[in-house]
Amino acid sequence: MKNAVVLLSGGLDSATTLAIAREQGYTCYALTVNYGQRHRAEIAAAARIASVLGAREQRVIEIDLRGWGGSALTDDAIAVPTAPSPGIPVTYVPARNTIMLSLALGWAEALGANDIFTGVNAVDYSGYPDCRPEYMAAFEAMARLATRSGVEGAPISIHTPIIKLSKAGIIRKGTRLGVDFALTVSCYQADALGRACGRCDACRLRREGFLAAEIADPTVYQPA
Amino acid sequence: MKNAVVLLSGGLDSATTLAIAREQGYTCYALTVNYGQRHRAEIAAAARIASVLGAREQRVIEIDLRGWGGSALTDDAIAVPTAPSPGIPVTYVPARNTIMLSLALGWAEALGANDIFTGVNAVDYSGYPDCRPEYMAAFEAMARLATRSGVEGAPISIHTPIIKLSKAGIIRKGTRLGVDFALTVSCYQADALGRACGRCDACRLRREGFLAAEIADPTVYQPA
Repeated sequence: MKNAVVLLSGGLDSATTLAIAREQGYTCYALTVNYGQRHRAEIAAAARIASVLGAREQRVIEIDLRGWGGSALTDDAIAVPTAPSPGIPVTYVPARNTIMLSLALGWAEALGANDIFTGVNAVDYSGYPDCRPEYMAAFEAMARLATRSGVEGAPISIHTPIIKLSKAGIIRKGTRLGVDFALTVSCYQADALGRACGRCDACRLRREGFLAAEIADPTVYQPA
Repeated sequence: MKNAVVLLSGGLDSATTLAIAREQGYTCYALTVNYGQRHRAEIAAAARIASVLGAREQRVIEIDLRGWGGSALTDDAIAVPTAPSPGIPVTYVPARNTIMLSLALGWAEALGANDIFTGVNAVDYSGYPDCRPEYMAAFEAMARLATRSGVEGAPISIHTPIIKLSKAGIIRKGTRLGVDFALTVSCYQADALGRACGRCDACRLRREGFLAAEIADPTVYQPA
């Protein structure tokens, strides 16, 4: 059996990534990183997705990045934007993907897994430096030098199966693989029940994705 | 003023590294990562060192890596070795330096600092893959692609000023810079008062270092 660690936020992209890893025959260990951004409802969503999609195990790592702020997702003083903006969005969290991939690397090494899957996407969040293919390649090169497995001849691979898909493409792919998107939460400011705001960037991209894919949108929104 | 994030464990190597960063004119932000290995006495030691050596601020990030084990430092079922062994030591913690450097990268980016200092050493722990110069270079290359500052033309530098020094060389360097090594804790199994066991690899290297440097060893050991 091939083991893989799959980063699972509870959103649409990472749920589809988990389904892809399962389709490829991996035994999946789902890692959810709660860096201070998440409501309990989203953690619960990640746990349900891991279970429904057949992850062998799911773990939640708690790490509080709110102390140093620098992002609308970790600093209540910075508003979540409701329209696209040029450059790097304020929802960018400093070094977030590097921190999450590093934690996945640690668990992978402890498990003896040589494969890590992440649902990063370079299309929707083109302003995020740590969603670019060249960044992912550099992380993989670093990871191969960082670890026991790399030294011993079984190097780590970082899989980014949806990095170049549109949101509609991800939704079509996930639907084919049987992902129940009603379980997923994408909203940057979901309420305690996991209901979406319908106004933030993440909600907008998700809604447009279902429209473009011509697939019914199961998202539950907060009452107006 | 140049700002730097300095990884500070509370041990001899990282204390010397902080003193070097200060000597080079950096305003220093000390980051201590408690990944489940530390006694409160060691956290307190790191705080005292940060203060005495003039760090602008010290933060402690808590992240529990004991759940996935894989190291004598995070799994009570694996004994701390008292003699050198071939290959990668059991005290190697999966992806530890990658995780700690990633957290330093996040804080650096939030602060607007482009410099990170770490007291990794390739001599004493030559079996640790993530203490090698080629690993550090790969981390720096990755970090430059990961971050806002890299995209905007002010790339992150990872400084490893003691990576090639012997323990005696580090002790001589720190002594010249006024580091009070009595404040530092190196032992893998220090007691609640921060007193060293005198038997583990870290204690052995430290004692031999003071002997070779011909500098009085201020380490306080546990009663026999």
